[in-house]
Amino acid sequence: MANLLSLNDLTIEEIERILDRAEQFQKMGENGWRSPNHTLVANLFFEPSTRTRFSFETAEKRLGFQVLNFSSQTSSVQKGETLYDTVRTMESIGAKAVVIRHQKDGYYRELTSGIGLPILNAGDGAGDHPTQALLDLLTIRQEFLLFQGLTVAIIGDLRYSRVARSDAQVLTRLGCRVLLSGPEEWKNEALPGEHISIDEAVEAADVVIMLRIQHERHEKAMKMSKEEYHRLYGLSRERAARMKPGSIIMHPGPVNRGVELDGDLVESTKSRYFKQITNGVAVRMASLEWALQSEKEAKAHEPVIEKW
Amino acid sequence: MANLLSLNDLTIEEIERILDRAEQFQKMGENGWRSPNHTLVANLFFEPSTRTRFSFETAEKRLGFQVLNFSSQTSSVQKGETLYDTVRTMESIGAKAVVIRHQKDGYYRELTSGIGLPILNAGDGAGDHPTQALLDLLTIRQEFLLFQGLTVAIIGDLRYSRVARSDAQVLTRLGCRVLLSGPEEWKNEALPGEHISIDEAVEAADVVIMLRIQHERHEKAMKMSKEEYHRLYGLSRERAARMKPGSIIMHPGPVNRGVELDGDLVESTKSRYFKQITNGVAVRMASLEWALQSEKEAKAHEPVIEKW
Amino acid sequence: MANLLSLNDLTIEEIERILDRAEQFQKMGENGWRSPNHTLVANLFFEPSTRTRFSFETAEKRLGFQVLNFSSQTSSVQKGETLYDTVRTMESIGAKAVVIRHQKDGYYRELTSGIGLPILNAGDGAGDHPTQALLDLLTIRQEFLLFQGLTVAIIGDLRYSRVARSDAQVLTRLGCRVLLSGPEEWKNEALPGEHISIDEAVEAADVVIMLRIQHERHEKAMKMSKEEYHRLYGLSRERAARMKPGSIIMHPGPVNRGVELDGDLVESTKSRYFKQITNGVAVRMASLEWALQSEKEAKAHEPVIEKW
Repeated sequence: MANLLSLNDLTIEEIERILDRAEQFQKMGENGWRSPNHTLVANLFFEPSTRTRFSFETAEKRLGFQVLNFSSQTSSVQKGETLYDTVRTMESIGAKAVVIRHQKDGYYRELTSGIGLPILNAGDGAGDHPTQALLDLLTIRQEFLLFQGLTVAIIGDLRYSRVARSDAQVLTRLGCRVLLSGPEEWKNEALPGEHISIDEAVEAADVVIMLRIQHERHEKAMKMSKEEYHRLYGLSRERAARMKPGSIIMHPGPVNRGVELDGDLVESTKSRYFKQITNGVAVRMASLEWALQSEKEAKAHEPVIEKW
Repeated sequence: MANLLSLNDLTIEEIERILDRAEQFQKMGENGWRSPNHTLVANLFFEPSTRTRFSFETAEKRLGFQVLNFSSQTSSVQKGETLYDTVRTMESIGAKAVVIRHQKDGYYRELTSGIGLPILNAGDGAGDHPTQALLDLLTIRQEFLLFQGLTVAIIGDLRYSRVARSDAQVLTRLGCRVLLSGPEEWKNEALPGEHISIDEAVEAADVVIMLRIQHERHEKAMKMSKEEYHRLYGLSRERAARMKPGSIIMHPGPVNRGVELDGDLVESTKSRYFKQITNGVAVRMASLEWALQSEKEAKAHEPVIEKW
Repeated sequence: MANLLSLNDLTIEEIERILDRAEQFQKMGENGWRSPNHTLVANLFFEPSTRTRFSFETAEKRLGFQVLNFSSQTSSVQKGETLYDTVRTMESIGAKAVVIRHQKDGYYRELTSGIGLPILNAGDGAGDHPTQALLDLLTIRQEFLLFQGLTVAIIGDLRYSRVARSDAQVLTRLGCRVLLSGPEEWKNEALPGEHISIDEAVEAADVVIMLRIQHERHEKAMKMSKEEYHRLYGLSRERAARMKPGSIIMHPGPVNRGVELDGDLVESTKSRYFKQITNGVAVRMASLEWALQSEKEAKAHEPVIEKW
C-alpha cells in the first residue's frame, strides 16, 4: 500500500503508469473488471464537495468496492474527535483505504504513523490536490500525447488554489513551461513558473487552466466586482479568440460562469471542462488501485487489480 | 430516452403502460429481475425529502443500479454552480439518468438542451410531481380498476401543491370528475375541476385526496390555528363517517396528524396512505425503465428492461 | 423477528448466542456468507454519529443487504412527521428492519404496536445502547473467556450515559462485580453497582470502562476545566500504572483525549479501544441476523442466515 498525498512523492514513471491504467479502465467501460472482494473504502469529506466526492464514489463502485460516505456536518467530529482517531476508527471498522478532503493544509502529517491503510488526498486546504492534477494530466496527454515542451498557463487565484500548486509542480517536472497570471495580491512566489500578464499567457499557451476563486479561503471579501474580475483576470470570449490553434481550455470546477470563464466558453470546442470530469473517474480508479497494491506488486510494474 | 417532467407530456397509453409495468414489478417481488449493467443514477434533491428520495433510491437499487445521492446542503451548489452544470457534471461522471427535486417551478426548462440523459422530475416548486401522480393513479386503479366516471376530491392547500396540480390534470384526462376544496385564499383557478365545499366534496367522492399544507411555500404564516384548520378544511372522523361506501382516503405524505387528517384515519380501513408509499417504489421502477428505454424500444411497446 | 431495544429483554443464553455468532462472522472474514436476497434495511439516525452508523452500515453491507441512510437534518421529519409514521413509511417502502438512534429516552415505546419489522436500538437518549453493550461483552469475553467473578469499573458521566446503563445492567446479570465512579453531581442511583472513588475502582478492576462526557445532554456547561476533570475523574497515566496486571481499558468512543483518558493510553497495550470498534461490526451482523430470524428459527437455536 502507498499513500497518495502529493504527486511530489511519485516518480514520473509511477505517474505515467497511473495515467496508462486510467485509460485502460476507460476502454473497459462500465462493465469492466471489478473486485471479487468486498473491499470497503471510506470517503471522509470535511469540506463540501460534489464532483470530487461523486467522482471517487463512482470510481470505487466501478471497482466493486463498498463505500462509506462521511461528511463532517453529520458526524461525531462535532464531538471533538481527532482526525487520527477518526481514520483509525474507519480502519477498525474494516476500511481498506480512506479518501480525505480537509480544510487544513497538510492535515495528513498527523496521520503518518500508526495508520495501517492508504490515504488518498482529495484536497488539503491550499495544499495539494493530486487526483485533480492526475486528471488534468490525462486530459492534456489525450490532447497532445506528450508533455515535454508544452506551454501551460494557470490563471486566477494562485495563492489559495491547491489545483494551481499541484498542477504547476507536476507540469514543471514533466517538462512543461508554466505561465502564471492573476491579481497581484494573489501572487504566489512558491509556485514554479513565470508570472506574466493574462493576455500574454493566453496567447502563448497550449493549455489555459482557469482557476476557481477560492472565496472560502480569503479572509477578506474580494474588493472587485465579478464583472471587473472577469474583465481583468477572466477568460472572456475576446481573450479566448486570441488563443493558439489547437490550444485548449481547462477549469477544475465548479465554474463561476461569467467570472473566471465566459459562460459560452464552458462547452466551446476548445473547452475540456466536462472531459476533465469524465477523466476524473478513471484516474481515481487507477489511483485507488495504485494505493491498494502491495510493495511487491508495485515493483512488478503490472496492473494488479486482477489479483486482489 | 425520455424525460419525465410532467404527465402532460405522456399519452394516456404511455401512462397505462407504466402502471401495468409497475404491477409487474410488484408481482416479481424484491428478488425479481435486475440489470446486469452497472447503470449509475444520481438523485439530486435540492429540497428536504424522505419518502420520495428513499422511494427512488429503493427503486434504483431494486433495478440493480448504482446510486449517487446528492442533497444541496453538502454540495458545491453552495459554490454557485448552475443547475445545468451540476447535471452535466453528473452526466460526465457517468450517470445514465438523474432524478431532481428543486424548489423552483419548471427548473427543468433550463435543462432542455445540451443534456444527454433523461431527467425524472421528483417535484418542482409548486409545479408538477409526476411520479406522485403515477402512484396515486396506481392506488386508485388497484381499488376501482377503471378511472372513467370516478369522482375524486382534492382538498386543502390547492395553490401551492404540485400534487394537486399533477393529480387534477391527469385525473381529468382519464375521465374522472375532480372536485376541489380548501381555504378561499388558497384557491387555484388554474386547476381543472369544480370548486365546492369540503362537506359536499367528501360526501360525493370515491377518492378523497387530502393535501399537506405547504408551510414552506407560503410567504406568510397561516393565520388559523391547526385546530381551526382541521375543523374547517381537515378530514375529521365526523366527515370521514359521511364518505360513500367503498370510497378511499389518500394523502401524499408526510401527514400532519390532526391537521389535514385526523390521526385515527391514517390507518383506518378507508385509508390507502401506506399503500400509496408501497406503490411509489413500483411506479418509480417503471418510470426509470420508461425514461431509460430507447425510442425504438418505446415504439415496440414492450418491456425492455431485460434487454438492457 | 424480534426487536433489540434493551439487553434486559434477552435471556443470558440469547446474549451468549449473539456473541458466539459474532465470532463466527469474524472468522468468516469479509468474503464470508452474504444474503442472496436483496434485504433492505434503513438506518434512521436522529442524532449525529460516526462509529455506530458506519458500524451498522458495514455490518449490513457485509450481510449483503441494501441500505437506506437517513439523518434527521435532511429529512421530512422537519415537516412534522411522527416517528411512528417515519418507521411505517420505511416499512411500506420495503425495509425489513430499521436501526434507530434518537435523542428521546424510550422513543421506541411509541412503536410497540402496528410496526411489522424489527427495530434495532442504536441508542435512545440516556436510555440504552444494546449493541454497544454487546460489543463491550464480546471484547471482555475475548480477553477473559468468562464474565463470572470479573470486576468492571465504569467511570465518568454516569447520569447521562446509556453505555453505563446498558453495560452495568448486563454485566451484573452476567455475574460481574460492577464499580461506579465519577463526579458526585453525575451520580446515578438507578445503576446497579457500588459507588466508590476512582482510585479504588481503577486498582480493583479487571476492566476499566471510561465514559465519554455527554456534553450535549447536560443542561448546564460543566463547571470544571478539562484539565481539572482529567485530574479528578480521568484515567491519567499515573492511575493507569496502578491497574492490575492483565486488566484492560475500554471506552465507547469518540474519546476526548486528555479528558476522560490520557491520549497516550488510547493505543497502549492495556487499551482495547479500537478492538471494540472492530468487534462492533461483528456483533451488529449477529444482532441483525437475530432480529430478522423467525420465531421458529429462534427456537431452533441455529444460525439461520444461510436459510434466508
